Amino acid sequence: MPPLRVVVPAGGIGAARFLTGLLPALAVTAPGSHVTVIGNTADDITMFGLRVSPDLDTVMYTLGGGIHPEQGWGRADETFVVKDELAAYGVQPQWFGLGDRDLATHVARTSMLGAGYPLSEVTATLGSRWLPANVGLLPMTDDRVETHVVVDDGPSTRAIHFQEWWVRHRAALPARRIVLLGVEQARPAPGVLDAIGEADVVLLAPSNPVVSLGPILSVPGLRDAVRAARAPVVGVSPIVAGRPVRGMADACLRAIGVPTTAAAVAGLFADILDGWLVDSSDEAAVEEVASLGVACRARPLLMSDVTATAAIASAALDLALAAGA
Amino acid sequence: MPPLRVVVPAGGIGAARFLTGLLPALAVTAPGSHVTVIGNTADDITMFGLRVSPDLDTVMYTLGGGIHPEQGWGRADETFVVKDELAAYGVQPQWFGLGDRDLATHVARTSMLGAGYPLSEVTATLGSRWLPANVGLLPMTDDRVETHVVVDDGPSTRAIHFQEWWVRHRAALPARRIVLLGVEQARPAPGVLDAIGEADVVLLAPSNPVVSLGPILSVPGLRDAVRAARAPVVGVSPIVAGRPVRGMADACLRAIGVPTTAAAVAGLFADILDGWLVDSSDEAAVEEVASLGVACRARPLLMSDVTATAAIASAALDLALAAGA
Repeated sequence: MPPLRVVVPAGGIGAARFLTGLLPALAVTAPGSHVTVIGNTADDITMFGLRVSPDLDTVMYTLGGGIHPEQGWGRADETFVVKDELAAYGVQPQWFGLGDRDLATHVARTSMLGAGYPLSEVTATLGSRWLPANVGLLPMTDDRVETHVVVDDGPSTRAIHFQEWWVRHRAALPARRIVLLGVEQARPAPGVLDAIGEADVVLLAPSNPVVSLGPILSVPGLRDAVRAARAPVVGVSPIVAGRPVRGMADACLRAIGVPTTAAAVAGLFADILDGWLVDSSDEAAVEEVASLGVACRARPLLMSDVTATAAIASAALDLALAAGA
Repeated sequence: MPPLRVVVPAGGIGAARFLTGLLPALAVTAPGSHVTVIGNTADDITMFGLRVSPDLDTVMYTLGGGIHPEQGWGRADETFVVKDELAAYGVQPQWFGLGDRDLATHVARTSMLGAGYPLSEVTATLGSRWLPANVGLLPMTDDRVETHVVVDDGPSTRAIHFQEWWVRHRAALPARRIVLLGVEQARPAPGVLDAIGEADVVLLAPSNPVVSLGPILSVPGLRDAVRAARAPVVGVSPIVAGRPVRGMADACLRAIGVPTTAAAVAGLFADILDGWLVDSSDEAAVEEVASLGVACRARPLLMSDVTATAAIASAALDLALAAGA
């Protein structure tokens, strides 16, 4: 097969793992292919004055072999000297566990942002240390978009940053609403719309549909570009047998009143999808998804190792090429 | 003796060491005394977007037992994970060796400054972790003052930040001129003039006369306040036998055309000094200093350990009380 230009809207851990399978799958079936990852930046947070981009970093570290293998986020061989020192100063918050290696990325990022470089250029610079030559990593936007979660506060409610809800409260506070601050004013980062327009295949990574893929597709113009793209668009369900493969997507889906099922999540993206992969255990969902006008196949979706993950990516590519034919 | 209010204009390593002797000396001769350190901030630099205050930190770490004992600056048990990571990203400059523990101080400082707190409040917050209850540490100013050094650049000259000259070039590039950027607009930090006005004793720490005590006394109003103070003012010579006790003060003195002698340095401060301590080896300078109208005594000035340093501080206090009588 000739080389493909593949675009992958991507959240953090799940997407990063998917990419570790996509790259070998492409190397086998379409050598010379190029992957543009469009990363979610709505989880980004300024912590201790440092700009943290968790999803971009997870993709970068994972593809560059720097990721903490068991955790799936943060750096391998991490130390926590700075975190302990900040705690000794009483600096708040203390629930955000920044490792020293990871922190260096944020220091470098913050320093470059402070010098006036947009996030997309900063990400390219940081990525040059980690990313394979055939992978580009673009933030969805250079503008500030932040996911906030509206939670109960006595008889009233209050909005907290997504990271506070996710990391500090482990998504255990019921989310009444999820708000994307700043998204209306955001513009796609340079290169994003071009990559989508020129893509041969668009693959939605198995990411949180509400707080990862949701924000990416909410950047004005981005969802329209995907819908209008000549490339087939195929997604991999992040929900298997009624539960998120990883993370707490169920808590997010509940907040927007969507059932935690592979078919319901397909419904969120039906307007842009040509195909959708569900897990073998969700075989029953295939027909329901097809009724949305989305070609659907059931395959084992557990990304247990690179081989299994490459098979999933391969199945997604097959479905895309079938749907695009 | 009743408790004294002592004010100490202070640079970094030499001053910090002097203070480790002054505190026990006061505990013996004037229990209940309080020391206000007026720290030099003209060495401060923004490095990787982090605001670094080397002299304030050296005082803080030294008095709080966190200093690297052999080095005299930076933290004990230091690690360099972040520095190595920044180098892996190719972040410049790489000549400024920030340790992880030390860096946490700068992250905390930068974060508070970014939130709008002035350096004096930030310093009080950071200092509360390190400083004894009877020591206050005030930056000379909350405003930005930066020492730059004019060096040769082929047939022309250029100005570089003091830290670049001092740390990167080890003061080996001949300094044509030393410039205090911003000093004309600087105001003494809150509390500085009051502390000087209320002081019972002012002791000039044995610090670099050009780039430590010089900038402090150049903050508009500060030198006048010391001159007008009812307290006797006594200095401890940082020059012993024609050489700086520590550091490269000779290179700085050369830049301003002043000989590296205990008497010449006394001459720099003659307008505010009541007394000056020189080293026993500089006995011959006593008369020369006295001719400036400054009471002078020769004592062993090598701060080899806390006992020796306490004796020096004690001699400075004695001279101050004699001069003030």
